[in-house]
Amino acid sequence: MVRKLEGRLVVASHNPGKLREMRELLAPYHIEAVSAGELHLPEPDETGTTFAENAALKAHAAATATGLPAFADDSGLCVEALDGAPGIFSARWAGPDKDFPAAIARIERELERRGALDDAGRRAHFVSALVVAWPDGHEELFEGRVFGKLVFPARGDRGFGYDPIFQPEGYDITFGEMSSEQKHGWSHPQGLSHRARAFRRLAAALLG
Amino acid sequence: MVRKLEGRLVVASHNPGKLREMRELLAPYHIEAVSAGELHLPEPDETGTTFAENAALKAHAAATATGLPAFADDSGLCVEALDGAPGIFSARWAGPDKDFPAAIARIERELERRGALDDAGRRAHFVSALVVAWPDGHEELFEGRVFGKLVFPARGDRGFGYDPIFQPEGYDITFGEMSSEQKHGWSHPQGLSHRARAFRRLAAALLG
Repeated sequence: MVRKLEGRLVVASHNPGKLREMRELLAPYHIEAVSAGELHLPEPDETGTTFAENAALKAHAAATATGLPAFADDSGLCVEALDGAPGIFSARWAGPDKDFPAAIARIERELERRGALDDAGRRAHFVSALVVAWPDGHEELFEGRVFGKLVFPARGDRGFGYDPIFQPEGYDITFGEMSSEQKHGWSHPQGLSHRARAFRRLAAALLG
Repeated sequence: MVRKLEGRLVVASHNPGKLREMRELLAPYHIEAVSAGELHLPEPDETGTTFAENAALKAHAAATATGLPAFADDSGLCVEALDGAPGIFSARWAGPDKDFPAAIARIERELERRGALDDAGRRAHFVSALVVAWPDGHEELFEGRVFGKLVFPARGDRGFGYDPIFQPEGYDITFGEMSSEQKHGWSHPQGLSHRARAFRRLAAALLG
């Protein structure tokens, strides 16, 4: 039995960009998003082995600490020829300084080392796992994926992270070259970006 | 410049099965395989984010400790619909008691939760990353992959780990139903199993 969300929701993220995006997404549903940072909640270690597990760790920790339903996202880029890497380590590959150009150079180097800079080797997808957890331990998971190919060198200075090397199927520009509206694809039947697709599923199940 | 292997080689594994397999594979090349366990070498933490990185950690640690070339393997099962999981965590999913039936049940449960128990969702591959490291820090990497599909329930009591749910492309039996000879595919042009394929590449480059 899926529960509906209403009232206040804790967003279990210390990332101001993610919080802003969630507030925008939730506004039409009259849900008030409170951030884990504003509540001075500690950040749990992301010790899971999947995106869903890491999102659940964060959501349950925030729900337990606040007594409110809590929402968390875990997301990343999976390169098929690298067996899914960087995957749940997408942020870690960029290091504490969030050096994504270095992480992008590493992806290109790892593909080159395997002779996999051809079309098949460049296949990749972004994943977003969204988990809503309630204080009693109940949880709901929604995932979104977008498939595409990697381009080197990176193109575009919009978006963040790996966006400038990811060209979604059916497009000839990268996420780094798209406006926020185009990247999320609100005019697209399922949404375009991984996070937009996961959020559409969440909204259909839990909101409105 | 690739270096040839000769004389003694440390096998950086504390797993008796892997050591036995490596001794069998290396015997025709007159390489004497000494195990890290016999030399009482400590096991380094596998803190890498890819198979290749974990194999390299183990190989370099053993080469540095012994002053001999050292060999290590890291391997696992990647399920595409699970973004490559369990991947480098293939052993960890089975827990300290090596409970692979529980790990297999978890894979089935995770696929079911995502509505991915169809043909596309069952796509998976095994990976083996073999690294040879020399005491001066030089390393060579060889990877092998075998693609196939997952079957539930598990079938066959040969092999180990996830073998009983993995049916390689072109076969209607699982690795768990194959003899060791058939699984490695010595009569197959590239070998069949991921480890056999990686070892063929290693042998072509470094041996004989």
